[in-house]
Amino acid sequence: MASFPPLQNDRLLRVARGETTDRTPVWMMRQAGRYLPEYQEVRAEHDFFEVVETPELAAEVTLQPVDRLPVDGAIIFSDIMTVPQAMGLEVTMVSGQGPTFPHPLETPDDLERLVEPDVGDALGHVFEALTVTRQKLEGRVPLIGFSGAPWTLMAYMVEGGGSKSYRHARAWLHRHPEAAKDLLRRTTDVVVDYLIGQVEAGAQMLQVFDSWAGLHGPDTFRAFCYPFLDEVASRVKSACPDVPLVVFAKNAHYALDALADTDYDVISLDWSMDPGAARDTVGDRAVLQGNLDPCALYAPPDALRRRVQHMLAGFGPHHHIANLGHGMLPDHDPEHARVFVETVHEQSEQMRTV
Amino acid sequence: MASFPPLQNDRLLRVARGETTDRTPVWMMRQAGRYLPEYQEVRAEHDFFEVVETPELAAEVTLQPVDRLPVDGAIIFSDIMTVPQAMGLEVTMVSGQGPTFPHPLETPDDLERLVEPDVGDALGHVFEALTVTRQKLEGRVPLIGFSGAPWTLMAYMVEGGGSKSYRHARAWLHRHPEAAKDLLRRTTDVVVDYLIGQVEAGAQMLQVFDSWAGLHGPDTFRAFCYPFLDEVASRVKSACPDVPLVVFAKNAHYALDALADTDYDVISLDWSMDPGAARDTVGDRAVLQGNLDPCALYAPPDALRRRVQHMLAGFGPHHHIANLGHGMLPDHDPEHARVFVETVHEQSEQMRTV
Repeated sequence: MASFPPLQNDRLLRVARGETTDRTPVWMMRQAGRYLPEYQEVRAEHDFFEVVETPELAAEVTLQPVDRLPVDGAIIFSDIMTVPQAMGLEVTMVSGQGPTFPHPLETPDDLERLVEPDVGDALGHVFEALTVTRQKLEGRVPLIGFSGAPWTLMAYMVEGGGSKSYRHARAWLHRHPEAAKDLLRRTTDVVVDYLIGQVEAGAQMLQVFDSWAGLHGPDTFRAFCYPFLDEVASRVKSACPDVPLVVFAKNAHYALDALADTDYDVISLDWSMDPGAARDTVGDRAVLQGNLDPCALYAPPDALRRRVQHMLAGFGPHHHIANLGHGMLPDHDPEHARVFVETVHEQSEQMRTV
Repeated sequence: MASFPPLQNDRLLRVARGETTDRTPVWMMRQAGRYLPEYQEVRAEHDFFEVVETPELAAEVTLQPVDRLPVDGAIIFSDIMTVPQAMGLEVTMVSGQGPTFPHPLETPDDLERLVEPDVGDALGHVFEALTVTRQKLEGRVPLIGFSGAPWTLMAYMVEGGGSKSYRHARAWLHRHPEAAKDLLRRTTDVVVDYLIGQVEAGAQMLQVFDSWAGLHGPDTFRAFCYPFLDEVASRVKSACPDVPLVVFAKNAHYALDALADTDYDVISLDWSMDPGAARDTVGDRAVLQGNLDPCALYAPPDALRRRVQHMLAGFGPHHHIANLGHGMLPDHDPEHARVFVETVHEQSEQMRTV
């Protein structure tokens, strides 16, 4: 492993490991992205996957929110589609539609088209981006790596892109349950290698995005989602015991208790979850992350501050990483992101003095 | 009110009123629709809103699933967009995109474009469709009317159509909270008149669809969703005390306890909700409806039967109306819908003999 500058602000990692800190750390999902004019400038010259695949560009974009805002972490600019790409599927970014697969997995026979990648070859650009970014961060804040979760990646690979119902992917669970599990197992293997490789390249915390977990009911979650999420955590944890793991199983409200029994250190909550109720369910089994409704950033600053304060009060001062309940939106005002971050810092320090 | 043929199968209404029956009644959201070849035949000659607006065609399509399957209820073929149309907004059906507003409500000033309709004039075609359908049903099963809920209608009116995030509509809640409440109040008034008019025209049970309730977190649900849902129920109930009211607040998992304290007799659950846990929360305050994952209908018949049986066991034999957790999908096999309905009847009778 390369040697990196010493870390100056380690609040994020300390809270993720269950320690207490002088204030609540904060970062934002999609904090590097379209709402930043400096990101738009980069994208005016380079298309989306060119930025993802060019380590210097990915590093530049990753650092933009850290240069602008007092966030307590940097998340590598990348995309969950890197894993399906590494498994041999073509993905293109279609403006207004998001990532799209020209040739999705339509039937179980299509599994033959998948390859078992060497992640160092297929995803070396992400590893290099992490190493370059970690150097350029100069220890200001920790660097977060990430991957899509097996089910969410399967949902895209079968559906072929964004969808309201993901009914093709969900149909597989009922029509081809064994092929679905085969696909999920193969995806799990790649995700595990990918996350371990990210740590070797410089990632100091890892988040697993199960963005489509909420498409399940409790039964299919138990059969097709949870086992693979759980396996990712236990295998990555045994390889990298010191690296905090975060899981974001969006809208899987019924899964909170089960997720608290996995090797994830942190459970990230979407904005539908009541912080106090979540704390009651999870107890001291995991740290909680989240969960301001991203649309609250549309509010005028004073109303936004009240909402942040209300959220912080719900979670309490400790064992909480402040974040949004989903990603930043393209028309958010960067100055409202600043209000969010600064209010978390100010209010969470005050909460500790009461 | 017109006189109608006497009702022969009243299980649906009896269960909705809290009575016990010899078997569990069952119907399916979107049971009249694209998965039926006989519906496709009608649509080959008439566009979507032409069917909605022509009482004889709406009645024909409403009766199709009742003629084909032993369902215990008929739901009028219509669309929740009838209310925004009555309020003066143009809605067109765009193939592959669903209902679309060429001129959505972009700013609070646009509220001036809304009209306060006389529902008898603006929505008389729906009332007439109900009366014709009720006659043609000849008392075989009860006729269900419906409306969109105020928040869900606002979401469409502001967003202008289907969307992944509904961020324009959600932004209003934070940018223009008073204008949002004004819009919701005005929509509530129309919804109330519309539902009462449906009863006068022949509807025997009413369902309020808050399809986008799940876009809220607990706080915005309390401010912008619940009060209007609650008001619809109390005003319709005082006008029509004998007509069972059903609420379907999709994905608002945190709202179950609060909904049980309203005047809705029945709470319809999406498939993310565990039936046993929902029963524990609701107790005897409401009857439950739902909630098989519509994608389970893609399973082979034997697997589908096991899933139906599992669902019935979760709800128990009484105070349950079997349904899906969301609507039928266009590529469902009508014969699998038959398996669903027949399994509910067979298994629920057996459950009562144990």
